[in-house]
Amino acid sequence: MEANIERIKNDIDIVTSFNRTPGNGCTRFSYSEEDRKAREYLINEMKKLGLEVRIDGVGNIRGKYNPMNSNYPSVMMGSHIDTVLNGGKFDGLVGVVSALEVIRQVKDNQISIQKPLEIIIWAEEEGSNSGITMLGSKAMTGKVKAEDLKEIKSFTGESMYDLMKEFGLDVDAIDSQVFRKDEVEYLIELHVEQGGILDSEGLSVGIVKAIAGMKTYKVTLEGVANHAGSTPMYLRNDALVGASHIITYMEDAAKNKGLGTTVATVGKIICEPNVPNIIPGKVVFYVDIRDVEEEGKDIISKELIEKVKENANLYNLKYDIELIGESPVVKLSEKVIDTIEKIAIERSYPYKVMNSGAVHDSGMFADLTNVGMIFVPSIGGRSHCPEELTRFEDIKLGCDLLLETVIRLAQ
Amino acid sequence: MEANIERIKNDIDIVTSFNRTPGNGCTRFSYSEEDRKAREYLINEMKKLGLEVRIDGVGNIRGKYNPMNSNYPSVMMGSHIDTVLNGGKFDGLVGVVSALEVIRQVKDNQISIQKPLEIIIWAEEEGSNSGITMLGSKAMTGKVKAEDLKEIKSFTGESMYDLMKEFGLDVDAIDSQVFRKDEVEYLIELHVEQGGILDSEGLSVGIVKAIAGMKTYKVTLEGVANHAGSTPMYLRNDALVGASHIITYMEDAAKNKGLGTTVATVGKIICEPNVPNIIPGKVVFYVDIRDVEEEGKDIISKELIEKVKENANLYNLKYDIELIGESPVVKLSEKVIDTIEKIAIERSYPYKVMNSGAVHDSGMFADLTNVGMIFVPSIGGRSHCPEELTRFEDIKLGCDLLLETVIRLAQ
Repeated sequence: MEANIERIKNDIDIVTSFNRTPGNGCTRFSYSEEDRKAREYLINEMKKLGLEVRIDGVGNIRGKYNPMNSNYPSVMMGSHIDTVLNGGKFDGLVGVVSALEVIRQVKDNQISIQKPLEIIIWAEEEGSNSGITMLGSKAMTGKVKAEDLKEIKSFTGESMYDLMKEFGLDVDAIDSQVFRKDEVEYLIELHVEQGGILDSEGLSVGIVKAIAGMKTYKVTLEGVANHAGSTPMYLRNDALVGASHIITYMEDAAKNKGLGTTVATVGKIICEPNVPNIIPGKVVFYVDIRDVEEEGKDIISKELIEKVKENANLYNLKYDIELIGESPVVKLSEKVIDTIEKIAIERSYPYKVMNSGAVHDSGMFADLTNVGMIFVPSIGGRSHCPEELTRFEDIKLGCDLLLETVIRLAQ
Repeated sequence: MEANIERIKNDIDIVTSFNRTPGNGCTRFSYSEEDRKAREYLINEMKKLGLEVRIDGVGNIRGKYNPMNSNYPSVMMGSHIDTVLNGGKFDGLVGVVSALEVIRQVKDNQISIQKPLEIIIWAEEEGSNSGITMLGSKAMTGKVKAEDLKEIKSFTGESMYDLMKEFGLDVDAIDSQVFRKDEVEYLIELHVEQGGILDSEGLSVGIVKAIAGMKTYKVTLEGVANHAGSTPMYLRNDALVGASHIITYMEDAAKNKGLGTTVATVGKIICEPNVPNIIPGKVVFYVDIRDVEEEGKDIISKELIEKVKENANLYNLKYDIELIGESPVVKLSEKVIDTIEKIAIERSYPYKVMNSGAVHDSGMFADLTNVGMIFVPSIGGRSHCPEELTRFEDIKLGCDLLLETVIRLAQ
């Protein structure tokens, strides 16, 4: 019994045909018309398999396969189907269509399982409407309430609450629909890696051990904007030179003072007045620090704070360091990891046990149930862009691994 | 005989009352209504002194004081009256009102001089309308033609040619009005330093020896935009880390490998996609290198190019280095410098002979006549901002020095 890759390919082709930006990557925001068409197609496919489909107040879709009418908690699989602007075809969608293929195989082959299987399609994972990611899984786990959605503004100005309402959802119901610990025993998400580790090592699947936690700092340096010609080097308080020393140091620190798993990124920088012949008077930049060990985040955060102080002092700059975002490290279920790894070994899949630097919906459930994740490679590590690519032979292997894992866990 | 500082102060107050942004610095662009009022006031003051006033096709104002009706070439003084957006009260204007005060003193005291005196008010020095600086002095010295002005677009979309026409100028005449070598024997511009050297050394006047030449480079680095969480440090091609190494190195090189007079500034940086959780895929930055010795510009330019190559190689980035602007070093007249310095010594003025890091209209004339410049201090080195300040006692000393210099050179 193997995943039918043609069926997976067909599902991907149909869902990615619902795309606001054909020719420039895939754009399918939650609660858009493209999303509506994708949902219609997938719900119809679920119904064809006899799944009992429910849609909650935030738009998460659950489809339950329970031929034995058992009362056991489910084995859940799934991911999201929304994309970033001009994103790729594989991020999220691969996990959803693989879940569908698993149930097709179980059904076609009349595999006997004790526990129900369930597909989950989370809404608004990318946060493309408002900048706030994973609203679907956050609402499902009670971390975001209906009232909160009234406060979160979409980029078009209306609240996420109103946007969801207009899409036809019963948003007020979400608070009574919160996920219960006894509903689901295992939750497995198959997802593209979005990094280049598997591809660079020539591997087909990754078994996720932990999802990195994050600290995001906003650093502001203020010097004196002055004439680039008439201000000698020794009379300058150049905010960009100060910032640049910190940026180069953070790269070095993540590499050499971190735990090996630590990463640090300055992705955004704003320079004022940003004119070629004026010495920068003010620079704001964001430092994103991640690790699968809290210790790594803490070490590098401390390095950042010290380096900001040191350079502010050296270049006579005013400084401010603000922690603007934080998420904890998520450790996935050892039982699920062991089950997946055993199968990978038995079948000689080229795999590695690895960490996820990106956050994922399933991480929201790690305190509530036994969570596992399977990664398939992103060629060149590219994701969130039109060039995003995962080979279908790797998707097939990932789906086969998901299938066998689910069958074993559902016994 | 001394400059009447109350008269200078009054002139400054009246001209700066013509201001588009009261309460937020001084904004008086060339060819604006504020400029028209400032011109009317200054032309009227010139006429009250009996000056013969001419306005050329680009809007430069010349006022000639020639009581002896002599045929000698003039001793010319002046500067500009336009400002940047939200600029200061002193930049440019101080040189114009001091020139006016010099002629008032010469006339009031019936000083006998052989050569005519001339006031020049250059138009559009700051380039606030189009980004192209010194259009007045460039047109006057034949470096910009009427046809060129049709190609230079103002920020409002129309050509500078049309903007000047609408202001009432006979723009086509400029090509026949080009400055002749035999018209003017000496040209002295009094200007605020726009740097912090005089202020930090507690001096009242600077005697300019050379105006720095400039090379401006646009550097582009291209790496790979990637996920800040899922891309390990060793798989990154981070364009901002590469750029930051170059920026810190340029500061160090200007300080330690330059000639002491060399400055290097990265004033503008653009990062793409500029999102906190995405590794920067592309960074563009501008490097402004200046020195009063061509050698200094060349050394630091070479250092830049080598450092870009080194970091592009180290971080596996594509790079492009483009020289987008260049101006030569301008050496001012030794005879004028000596005359000014002799007076400063005789009168025990706290002075220094220094260089100008900023470019000035009078630099355009260094090949055509004997050019000198007198600087007065900018408090804290601030200029092109509402905080721009020069003490009136220093302006008075600068004007006294200009007065005596002009009288001696006009003999």
